[in-house]
Amino acid sequence: MGKFRLARRVAMVGAGMSSFGAFPRKTSRDLFVDAFEAMLASMDKPFDPEQIDALVIGNYGSELFENQGHIAPLMADWVGLLPRPAVRIEDACASSGVAIRQGILAIAAGLHDVVLVGGVEKMTNMPTEQVTDVLGTGGDMLYEIPVGFTFPGFYAAMATAYGHEYGASPEALWRVAVKNHENGALNPKAQFPKTIRQVMDSRMAKAKEKGQPIPAWEDEMAFLQDDAVNPVIAWPLRLFDCSPITDGAACLLLVPEDRAREFSDAPVVIIGTGQASDSALHDRATLTGIPAARLAAEQAYAMAGVGPEAIQVTEVHDCFTIAEVIASEDLGFFAPGEGWQAAMAGRTARDGDKPINTSGGLKAKGHPVGASGAAQAVEMWEQLRGEAGERQTPGSPRIGMTHNVGATGSTCVVHIYERR
Amino acid sequence: MGKFRLARRVAMVGAGMSSFGAFPRKTSRDLFVDAFEAMLASMDKPFDPEQIDALVIGNYGSELFENQGHIAPLMADWVGLLPRPAVRIEDACASSGVAIRQGILAIAAGLHDVVLVGGVEKMTNMPTEQVTDVLGTGGDMLYEIPVGFTFPGFYAAMATAYGHEYGASPEALWRVAVKNHENGALNPKAQFPKTIRQVMDSRMAKAKEKGQPIPAWEDEMAFLQDDAVNPVIAWPLRLFDCSPITDGAACLLLVPEDRAREFSDAPVVIIGTGQASDSALHDRATLTGIPAARLAAEQAYAMAGVGPEAIQVTEVHDCFTIAEVIASEDLGFFAPGEGWQAAMAGRTARDGDKPINTSGGLKAKGHPVGASGAAQAVEMWEQLRGEAGERQTPGSPRIGMTHNVGATGSTCVVHIYERR
Repeated sequence: MGKFRLARRVAMVGAGMSSFGAFPRKTSRDLFVDAFEAMLASMDKPFDPEQIDALVIGNYGSELFENQGHIAPLMADWVGLLPRPAVRIEDACASSGVAIRQGILAIAAGLHDVVLVGGVEKMTNMPTEQVTDVLGTGGDMLYEIPVGFTFPGFYAAMATAYGHEYGASPEALWRVAVKNHENGALNPKAQFPKTIRQVMDSRMAKAKEKGQPIPAWEDEMAFLQDDAVNPVIAWPLRLFDCSPITDGAACLLLVPEDRAREFSDAPVVIIGTGQASDSALHDRATLTGIPAARLAAEQAYAMAGVGPEAIQVTEVHDCFTIAEVIASEDLGFFAPGEGWQAAMAGRTARDGDKPINTSGGLKAKGHPVGASGAAQAVEMWEQLRGEAGERQTPGSPRIGMTHNVGATGSTCVVHIYERR
Repeated sequence: MGKFRLARRVAMVGAGMSSFGAFPRKTSRDLFVDAFEAMLASMDKPFDPEQIDALVIGNYGSELFENQGHIAPLMADWVGLLPRPAVRIEDACASSGVAIRQGILAIAAGLHDVVLVGGVEKMTNMPTEQVTDVLGTGGDMLYEIPVGFTFPGFYAAMATAYGHEYGASPEALWRVAVKNHENGALNPKAQFPKTIRQVMDSRMAKAKEKGQPIPAWEDEMAFLQDDAVNPVIAWPLRLFDCSPITDGAACLLLVPEDRAREFSDAPVVIIGTGQASDSALHDRATLTGIPAARLAAEQAYAMAGVGPEAIQVTEVHDCFTIAEVIASEDLGFFAPGEGWQAAMAGRTARDGDKPINTSGGLKAKGHPVGASGAAQAVEMWEQLRGEAGERQTPGSPRIGMTHNVGATGSTCVVHIYERR
């Protein structure tokens, strides 16, 4: 499956995202323009967008969400980049992670020098049940969806198998939620501005104010165990185990490594890329890991010439809390079955030895599906350049990783980044 | 917009397609398997599919046609190629033309050596009006579709402008239809097995048999002028000016040029690629040409180091007859306004000086939208290797071209091929 090397290496010299959230008055086009402008604002040196050669856009379901297909040239039009070639990539929730890889290939191939990679999704304009149906098209519509599976159901099956196999408790998953909301609360672009502790405190204050009985939540774990605030969505997953429905976009600018200093004082070189596929979940060999993620990570490590121990900051695809735990094992940070204990022990917190989802992750930053992979790269841009503000990880990280999953893991794409 | 050169050149060493038509019992997966097997059967030397490194799949609207998104890994699964990376490209009807380009980039980048490029679409499982709505999502859903445009309407506007500007008559368009059906009748994979003359004769015979008055059609032009057999769809375009709704798939195998002889005795090198974008039609500077096609052709010619005079056989995107006439000008074969006269004079026939759509084109071979770009490359494979059977163009052509358009020309991708 390829030689794990590229004819030339590629660097990121700018990255930015729109605010993530629910924006009834914004279309995909508006969100994309927001991200493009944020990307331009992130750059170190004056840059004329006319230098851009081509666009690669990740988007999952614009034809179903907005009744609009063929969005790549529309996005090019709205950021003033006609008549440049524009390609739309769809690999479910991995669409813009795969778009990054296609942008890398376009430069490594020698055809283009300056490539805009973006991701965008507009999801909040339809009822939740309908969004669930749209997301379902990322599964297998012959063998899975007709028998009643939804995405919470898929990941609930994985969580059940994982709990059975390794003895993990729901509390381990809730620790992921608590951590990611703590990080997200420090991210000004995130969908959720509050920590779970803050949500809990505010509900207690409201009850007090109204003279209602004050719930006996002594901490977040007790709060999350309360069926009234954290109902079961698909057992064992509850509301706070699920990422939200989100509108948003993200953009990054890629150039050849040997030209990176023309555009940036501190470029972020993409030193590894890996991608693999798998069957839909119903035909998968295991439910306690995502084999395509392991393969993608192996390829990326091989290309980068580093191992898991070198990775200082990571964004993983936590569409559900269980997905983060599994990812932390698939990427080689923790042994199979030990990811949940690492989460419990705080090892994946900002100040832990393996910080994961400092952005808030899909869970708290939000999950506009086709934009999530590109938004992970935006977090790398900020963390590796020491620009992540209050959520900056300690120790000036130099090497980071992103892990973007399509559906239940039928697609997985991994990238490794190094600040220069 | 790039440097019109690649780090290494890429060759096609196999190409095949499913039958095109309406296949109620086949899904996209089945069609793709048919195309994959045809591709394998087309190869000169023994080949183990395990050598394939990656897949790039063009598909326009599986989420709308079949309620199935994320088809790239499903296709990989069904042809036994898991866990290889699989990317789905969507650029409306140019999806698999763009997929070919992405396949080229993956090889030129040095990452992969053997890439399977495919295109697939399953369209005939819903009523025609609904298909028209699905195709409409390739236009602009904010500014075009809400005011009543459909795809026949878009191309009717172009035909009207072209006729007004250059004095072309509907007969010039019908000549395109007659020619393409003549070619398609010689293509065993084409949707329509009959020439328009054969359709006309069979209707006359039927009328005679039933003792009905025999229509006074002295030739195809009279037949196509008859409102009863060739009703207006969107004036001036009539039924026989429109490509059909089709199920189908096509596949090709790409390798680096310097390894091509390992796989083929007569590889077809892709010596030029070009792609450009434009606004949706409502905001376009001209209706009598497709600017993105001109730009894409310029890029491809520059890379190949040849001009229009070198092209011996061409497949163009004749979603409507007017589109073929305009393409023949955009590609530089004829001056603006002279394409219709060339069609009238038979210059684009199989034995003309610029044979176009020897496969039957989208018009007669069929137009499974996401597969059409890849199917054009299949025709190049057969024509340039002298394997096109009864529809082989004379003179053993060595250099050919494909022209694949997304929507009304918001995307256009052009490739130039040379047999070695």
